[in-house]
Amino acid sequence: MPQAMELEQLIQIMSKLPGLGARSARRAVLHLLKHKQSMMEPLAQKMLSVSQQIVGCDECGNWDVTSPCSLCADAARDHSTICVVEEVSDCWALERGRLYRGLYHILGGTLSAMDGRGPEQLNIPKLEQRITQLGVKEIILATNATVDGQTTAHYITERIKPLNIIITRLAMGIPMGGELDYLDEGTLSNALSTRQAV
Amino acid sequence: MPQAMELEQLIQIMSKLPGLGARSARRAVLHLLKHKQSMMEPLAQKMLSVSQQIVGCDECGNWDVTSPCSLCADAARDHSTICVVEEVSDCWALERGRLYRGLYHILGGTLSAMDGRGPEQLNIPKLEQRITQLGVKEIILATNATVDGQTTAHYITERIKPLNIIITRLAMGIPMGGELDYLDEGTLSNALSTRQAV
Repeated sequence: MPQAMELEQLIQIMSKLPGLGARSARRAVLHLLKHKQSMMEPLAQKMLSVSQQIVGCDECGNWDVTSPCSLCADAARDHSTICVVEEVSDCWALERGRLYRGLYHILGGTLSAMDGRGPEQLNIPKLEQRITQLGVKEIILATNATVDGQTTAHYITERIKPLNIIITRLAMGIPMGGELDYLDEGTLSNALSTRQAV
Repeated sequence: MPQAMELEQLIQIMSKLPGLGARSARRAVLHLLKHKQSMMEPLAQKMLSVSQQIVGCDECGNWDVTSPCSLCADAARDHSTICVVEEVSDCWALERGRLYRGLYHILGGTLSAMDGRGPEQLNIPKLEQRITQLGVKEIILATNATVDGQTTAHYITERIKPLNIIITRLAMGIPMGGELDYLDEGTLSNALSTRQAV
């Protein structure tokens, strides 16, 4: 091993981050060594403070300094609509667009026959509880347009149907800037079958 | 901003690491949040300990817990040969192969007309000093086979020529497993002009 044990261990931990491998972890660590004062130490301190301060919201599953999180606690948001997403990153993506003013519910993944993930591993009982407690009128299913995402949306639909509320899905069709020639048949088929009057 | 200030700041610092952008930094931070005990805290602690313990070697420029580093201090290595590389990562790459048993010298970059880096920004005076002090017999120029790397090697050759020692370069040619049809003309031209008798 050419590098000191401490360095090797740091590289090993870094290489387990998603999107980084052994090589990019080495590059990142060398970058941090070159910028000890301006990057490595602030980054370590910030990680410790995030680790201590950030908690999972007991209501929706979002990460925030408080639970309930700032979204759940915001009285200006519409508490009668819940948008169900797979991961926290999906919630953040929707929030960046500032297009939605209701609440969220983060499942923490999808059902997956391949990976052996069943309903009990998703945050679904809490969703049912919130629907009843908050008097929710509409559930927007915003899982990904993947096989697992669709399966999960279907499962949740079946499960909350008895609660007798409006259940909607995000529209599927041509993305902004999309060129027909480059889109897959599934997308085109969806866009065609749900075409709208102009 | 959908996420808490602390999270946003952590994502911002992470996104400045080489190979990470805003999106992959968000993914990495969400991964760390999901594994606080097993990853985020050990990673932060390891960064702090690396930041405190690891120093640049005053001799060659390598990172280690001591200066001179373990490579420079190793009496079993051949102190009459110095391999000159651009970055610490290049030294580590050569060490992983365990093919070389001499010393290293890390320049800390290359000359670059484009980026305005001149000789004074590289660790060259120290190289000249080491050559004299150690009674070095051979300098192996192992800068990258890029324009800047070659320019730097050429510059160093001219500069240390008066010291009257052997100066060599890594051989250039077809890489192991290389297919002629996929190699550039420069590589083929090099391989042809330095062809060897079988």
